[in-house]
Amino acid sequence: MKKNRITELLGIQYPIIQGGMVWCSGWKLASAVSNHGGLGLLGIGSMHPEILEEHILKMQEATNKPWGVNLPLFYPELERVVDLIIKYDVKIVFTSAGSPKKLTARFKEHGITVVHVIANTKFAQKCELAGVDAIVAEGFEAGGHNSPEETTTMALIPIIRQFTDLPLIAAGGIGSGMQMAAALALGAEGVQIGSLFAASEESSAHEAYKQAVVDAKEGATVLTLKELGPTRLIPNQFSEEMDKLRRSGASTEEMRALLGKGRAKQGIFEGNTEEGEIEIGQISSMINKIEPASDIIKRVMEQCDATLERLANLRE
Amino acid sequence: MKKNRITELLGIQYPIIQGGMVWCSGWKLASAVSNHGGLGLLGIGSMHPEILEEHILKMQEATNKPWGVNLPLFYPELERVVDLIIKYDVKIVFTSAGSPKKLTARFKEHGITVVHVIANTKFAQKCELAGVDAIVAEGFEAGGHNSPEETTTMALIPIIRQFTDLPLIAAGGIGSGMQMAAALALGAEGVQIGSLFAASEESSAHEAYKQAVVDAKEGATVLTLKELGPTRLIPNQFSEEMDKLRRSGASTEEMRALLGKGRAKQGIFEGNTEEGEIEIGQISSMINKIEPASDIIKRVMEQCDATLERLANLRE
Repeated sequence: MKKNRITELLGIQYPIIQGGMVWCSGWKLASAVSNHGGLGLLGIGSMHPEILEEHILKMQEATNKPWGVNLPLFYPELERVVDLIIKYDVKIVFTSAGSPKKLTARFKEHGITVVHVIANTKFAQKCELAGVDAIVAEGFEAGGHNSPEETTTMALIPIIRQFTDLPLIAAGGIGSGMQMAAALALGAEGVQIGSLFAASEESSAHEAYKQAVVDAKEGATVLTLKELGPTRLIPNQFSEEMDKLRRSGASTEEMRALLGKGRAKQGIFEGNTEEGEIEIGQISSMINKIEPASDIIKRVMEQCDATLERLANLRE
Repeated sequence: MKKNRITELLGIQYPIIQGGMVWCSGWKLASAVSNHGGLGLLGIGSMHPEILEEHILKMQEATNKPWGVNLPLFYPELERVVDLIIKYDVKIVFTSAGSPKKLTARFKEHGITVVHVIANTKFAQKCELAGVDAIVAEGFEAGGHNSPEETTTMALIPIIRQFTDLPLIAAGGIGSGMQMAAALALGAEGVQIGSLFAASEESSAHEAYKQAVVDAKEGATVLTLKELGPTRLIPNQFSEEMDKLRRSGASTEEMRALLGKGRAKQGIFEGNTEEGEIEIGQISSMINKIEPASDIIKRVMEQCDATLERLANLRE
């Protein structure tokens, strides 16, 4: 594939971004992705500021290719991590779960490239006003935290593309190069891949979590916890208890009490596949083994190239 | 675009199938689609056998191009409509909402081409065993009746493609030629379009229904009625009452009682947009006017061709 606005903006070889994921994407995964031509992102959402500092320092040793961080804007010690991002001269920040107005101008003052994650045109407009450099539009099929609108990647990308000319990355449902080529057809210029990398060798997730993803059959995930913050995961004892509570007509407060704290850490990092959250996307049934990030990138790009060739042959 | 297995099998110019939809797709819509190069389908789901007979006769007068019917296998007077299909030498039958084992062999004995609608690989396998000629794989974003798995078109098509070599039509989320090209990238050989045609000039739906679709904003539809049979629609007074009942911890029987009978007819055919079901897909926000089926087909094909050209130019 030729260079495009996303590869140019981020300085990468392939328009593949590794989603910044809680408990999965530390320096090992992010540097492996960056070293093999994609863009690796440290997932700040699950890092205390001290841990982030450690990962930034290791990242700087592990790669001389472009990389970035993903910063959920509801992060409790936001000021401390913003200071670290600026102090250590992080060049690329993906922001999510909040208004792009919040930090974009400040990051841009320091020459940082800002990409914001959205799920509708309302936020695409906010991104334009805030001056972000690019957007990620994420569909219903994506793993982990998701949007209440439930618009799928297929429906969402052309709507966003029609609305804004900002460089556009598609997320949700990208499990192969066929899906990457589809995202390009829809109007995206790159893809953000979560699930494939969450289950990769370099992911810091627990082996039991990765095995649960490998074992996941078609249709294994559900979008649940809708009252508390929609989350796609593989149902287990915890989510079934929650469903039972919901069906009994429980209040949001009662559900929040059952959720408690640290369910994602329990499931993803500690491998408690019954009581923790096993967050993953719909394409988990396409994952049949735990493999290095480099193999994932190579395969997706080969499939994408082959798909573009197949499509070229459909033309008269 | 070149001919492919779907255009050859169905004898059509463009690999565009008009979904057989209750209260929308009578002979006017189906013949308009067939006369302009796609495949029109009479939606038997909302027709008494006498009405079907009338539509078949009008269809035979209105077009000499290939056309077919969509037959939901839970249809109450199944034997009577099967007899009509055979008696009037209908050449193409799309079956849905049931096992392809039920009627495929019988239709095939009469030389009828059989296409079955599925939403997972389990049913793709049943289709292979039953000897259907092609399959439609329909994703979560589709309007009206839908599957409990909630797998999106983006996630579903490559999974089905990998599983079976049967000719494959993608449905759900196809609102433009960009989405048609994406479906081809995912491995489909044609698309089934519902929403665009439901709101077309020739659709037999009520003007108030069509206007509700034109007015629908991004994110306007929800997949609801999950306990009774998942259905995508635009929320209104009826669906809000149902939600309230569900949240109160009501039983399925209580919900069924509120649903009653004829909600789709009320909403789509009679235009009661508050008490009836306004069934439509996620791409309804892309529909901004009521237009003839011919314009829809022309635009989708032009966009698809332009997208394939754009994708060809991405290659080095």
